[in-house]
Amino acid sequence: MDIFDRVSANQGPLGSHSHYAHGYFTFPKLEGEIKPRMIFRGKEVLTWSLNNYLGLANHPEVRQADAEGATEYGMAYPMGARIMSGNSSLHERLENELADFVHKPAALLLNFGYQGVVSIIDSLVSRHDAIVYDAESHACIIDGVRLHAGKRFVYSHNDMESLEKQLERAKRLTDETGGGILVITEGMFGMSGNLGKLPEIVALKQKYNFRLFVDDAHGFGTLGPTGAGTAEHLGATEGVDLIFYTFAKSMASIGAFVAGPEAVIEYLRYNMRSQIFAKSLPMALVTGALKRLELIRNHPEYRENLWTIVRALQSGLREKGFNIGTTESPVTPVFLNGQIPDATALTFDLRENHGVFCSIVVYPVVPKGVIMLRLIPTAVHTLEDVRITIAAFEAISAKLDKGLYSKQAATA
Amino acid sequence: MDIFDRVSANQGPLGSHSHYAHGYFTFPKLEGEIKPRMIFRGKEVLTWSLNNYLGLANHPEVRQADAEGATEYGMAYPMGARIMSGNSSLHERLENELADFVHKPAALLLNFGYQGVVSIIDSLVSRHDAIVYDAESHACIIDGVRLHAGKRFVYSHNDMESLEKQLERAKRLTDETGGGILVITEGMFGMSGNLGKLPEIVALKQKYNFRLFVDDAHGFGTLGPTGAGTAEHLGATEGVDLIFYTFAKSMASIGAFVAGPEAVIEYLRYNMRSQIFAKSLPMALVTGALKRLELIRNHPEYRENLWTIVRALQSGLREKGFNIGTTESPVTPVFLNGQIPDATALTFDLRENHGVFCSIVVYPVVPKGVIMLRLIPTAVHTLEDVRITIAAFEAISAKLDKGLYSKQAATA
Repeated sequence: MDIFDRVSANQGPLGSHSHYAHGYFTFPKLEGEIKPRMIFRGKEVLTWSLNNYLGLANHPEVRQADAEGATEYGMAYPMGARIMSGNSSLHERLENELADFVHKPAALLLNFGYQGVVSIIDSLVSRHDAIVYDAESHACIIDGVRLHAGKRFVYSHNDMESLEKQLERAKRLTDETGGGILVITEGMFGMSGNLGKLPEIVALKQKYNFRLFVDDAHGFGTLGPTGAGTAEHLGATEGVDLIFYTFAKSMASIGAFVAGPEAVIEYLRYNMRSQIFAKSLPMALVTGALKRLELIRNHPEYRENLWTIVRALQSGLREKGFNIGTTESPVTPVFLNGQIPDATALTFDLRENHGVFCSIVVYPVVPKGVIMLRLIPTAVHTLEDVRITIAAFEAISAKLDKGLYSKQAATA
Repeated sequence: MDIFDRVSANQGPLGSHSHYAHGYFTFPKLEGEIKPRMIFRGKEVLTWSLNNYLGLANHPEVRQADAEGATEYGMAYPMGARIMSGNSSLHERLENELADFVHKPAALLLNFGYQGVVSIIDSLVSRHDAIVYDAESHACIIDGVRLHAGKRFVYSHNDMESLEKQLERAKRLTDETGGGILVITEGMFGMSGNLGKLPEIVALKQKYNFRLFVDDAHGFGTLGPTGAGTAEHLGATEGVDLIFYTFAKSMASIGAFVAGPEAVIEYLRYNMRSQIFAKSLPMALVTGALKRLELIRNHPEYRENLWTIVRALQSGLREKGFNIGTTESPVTPVFLNGQIPDATALTFDLRENHGVFCSIVVYPVVPKGVIMLRLIPTAVHTLEDVRITIAAFEAISAKLDKGLYSKQAATA
C-alpha cells in the first residue's frame, strides 16, 4: 500500500482526534508573557501547563540577557557544527560552569536535547553491549535505545526486582559477548512526577558491573540542595556516571548538556552524530544560559518558592481526596476516572468556566478509563492561585462524579 | 568490557586526532561578525567554511529582526511542545509562507533539522514498508533509516542503475508484505556539491510505485528560479512528494521545515516523536525566519551574487588544473592527493601564511590518500576574495606536489 495513502487515511492515535481537538486540546495557543496568567482564545486563564519551574522565562534579567545576546550576536552566530566552525570561548565557559554546577568533572553542550539524548546512547554502545532501561523513559531515550544494534532489556517502571532480573539477563549476555551494560532511567519523570530510584540502582553496581545514564531534564534547578537535580537530591551524584539536563524546563530556553568524566565527555564531543553533523547552539542561547545559570546559583529562594507552591497544591489536592499518584516532585498529576468524551467536556468546563488551563492526558498515554490532568507549579504562582485551582478541581470533580459531563457529551 | 573504559581508551576516528587537532583543525573558533573576513586565533582570515550562502547572517535587517524578536519575546516563549502548549499564530503564518515559497500545499515547522529528518522517516514507515536511499545521504537520514524496523536498500550515490536494482528488490519485498516504498536522497549534497538526480528518480515512479523524500538543506535559497531549491532547479517539484529544508544554511539560523501534501503534513504534525515530545521552535527564531524569508523572496540578486562568486571560484580553480570533482552547486570541494600529515601541514600553511580558512576533510569521510578542502562561496564574498584564494591554492598545491609538507611533517 502506498505510504501516503496509509498515513493520510490513518492519522495516528492523536491525529485521529484532530477534527475536534485541534487548536483547543491539541496545539492550543497560550499568548502573552510567560506567567501564571496568560491568554487562551482571547480570555485570561490561570496556567499550570508550562515547565517554567523557577519562573525564569519572564525574569527581567533573563529577558534583558536574551535581548542583549540577540542584539550582540544575532541568531546566526556561530555557524556550522561545533567541530567544524561553530565553537566559541563562551560555549566552553558555559560548559565549565555547568559541570561545576552539577558537581561533575566535565560537560558538553548540546544543540538540542532530544537529539542529544538519542546520540549519547547511540555513540556509547556497541553491538556487544546491553542496554537496560526503565519502561516509562522519555521518547528520546526510547529512540536512542531503538538505534542500538545489540540487546536491550526493559524493566518495569521503578521496579528494582524487575531491574535486577533484567540485569541478570544482561550480565549473562555480556559475559558472552565481552560487552558492557548501560542502565538508563530518568531522574524526575515528567508525567508521573516519580523520581528514579537512583540510590537503589547505584547499589546494584556492586553485583552487576554497569554504567548508569540518567536523563534529568525535569530535575535540573528544581531538586537538590544546590539545584543540581535528582541525583543530588537523593545523594547519588557519584554513582550516576553520566547525566543529561535540558535547558527547556527550569532554564526556560532550548539546548541541553551532558555531564560526566572527562574522557567520556571528550569521546562524546567527537562522536555524537547529532552534534558533529548539525549546527552549534546559537550564541544568544549560550549567553542566555549563562545568565539563567547565574540566577539559579545565586537565588535558592526561587527553588524554595517553587516548593512552597508545590506543597500547598499537592497537600491541598490530597486533602480534598484527589488521587495525585506517587509524585515526589513538582509535577502534579490528578487522576480522574472517565472516558475521552468526559475528559474533553471537563477540560472545556475547566478552561471556559473556571479559567484554569492545564494539560490533559488520555489513552494511550494513560490506561483507558483514566483521565490525567497534569499541573506544573512554578515559583511565580501564588497561594491564591493554588486556592482557586483546588476549588475549580472540586467543582469539576463533583460534576464528573454525577455523570454530568457524559450527559453533555451525549447531547453535544 | 566496561563501556566507559572502552570509549575512554578508543576516542573514535576523529577523537583520536584531538591531541594535536583540537582548537585548530577541530573545534576552531571563528570570531567576529559572520562575513568573509573573520578572526581565527587573533588573526584575520578569509573564510570559506560557513554555509551563509546568501550573506543573511549579518544582514542589517536580519540582525535587527533577531534583536527585536528576542527583545519582544525572550528566548523562552513559547514553552512546551507545540502540540501541548507551544503553538502560536506566527508559527502557523511562517508555515503558510514557507509552503507557498516552495510551491507545496502545506508545511510543518521543526524545532531542529537533524531530529526532524530522523522523525519524518521514522513516523512515515511501518515495518512492512521498504526504504531505498542514496549511499551518501547525510547522517540524519541514515539515523532515520536505522530506526526503520523493516527492510532498507542502499543504492550507490546518484547511480540510477543501482537505484533501479534496489527498487526491484524493494518491489518484490513490498509485493509480499503489502507495504510501500520510500525513496530518500538529498537535493544538493553538502560534501561533494553534487545534485540528486531528481528528474531521473521521479521518472522511475511509473515503473515502481514509491514516494520520494528529499533532504534539500543546501538547496533552499541557492537553487531554482525562485530559490525554492534543487527540485525547482531541476523541474521536479511535483514529483518530489515531500521535501525537507533547514534554516541552518541560507536562512542563517536554526530550525527547519518539511513541505508536502496537506494530509501527510497533518499526519507528521501529530506523529513525529521529536516534535510532539520536545519543545517548540522559539518565537524569536520564528520572527527571524519570517524576515529572512521575506529577504530571500524579494532579493533574487543575493542568489545572483552568490552564483557570480561560485562561477568565478569554480572556473578559476578548474583553469588552474584543480580537481573540484563533479559539483553542480555552490559547494566547492578541492581534491588533493596526500596523507593526513600533509593535510594538516597544508591547512596550517593556508591559514597562517595565506590567511585563507576553509574546512579540511580527510579519511574516513574521503578515501585514504585524499585530502578534501571544502570551499563554501557566499553572496558577500568578492571577486578579489576569489583571486586571493585561487592564488593561495596554487601556492599550497605547488608545495604539496614537491613533497614539502611531508618533509615538514617528518621533521615536526
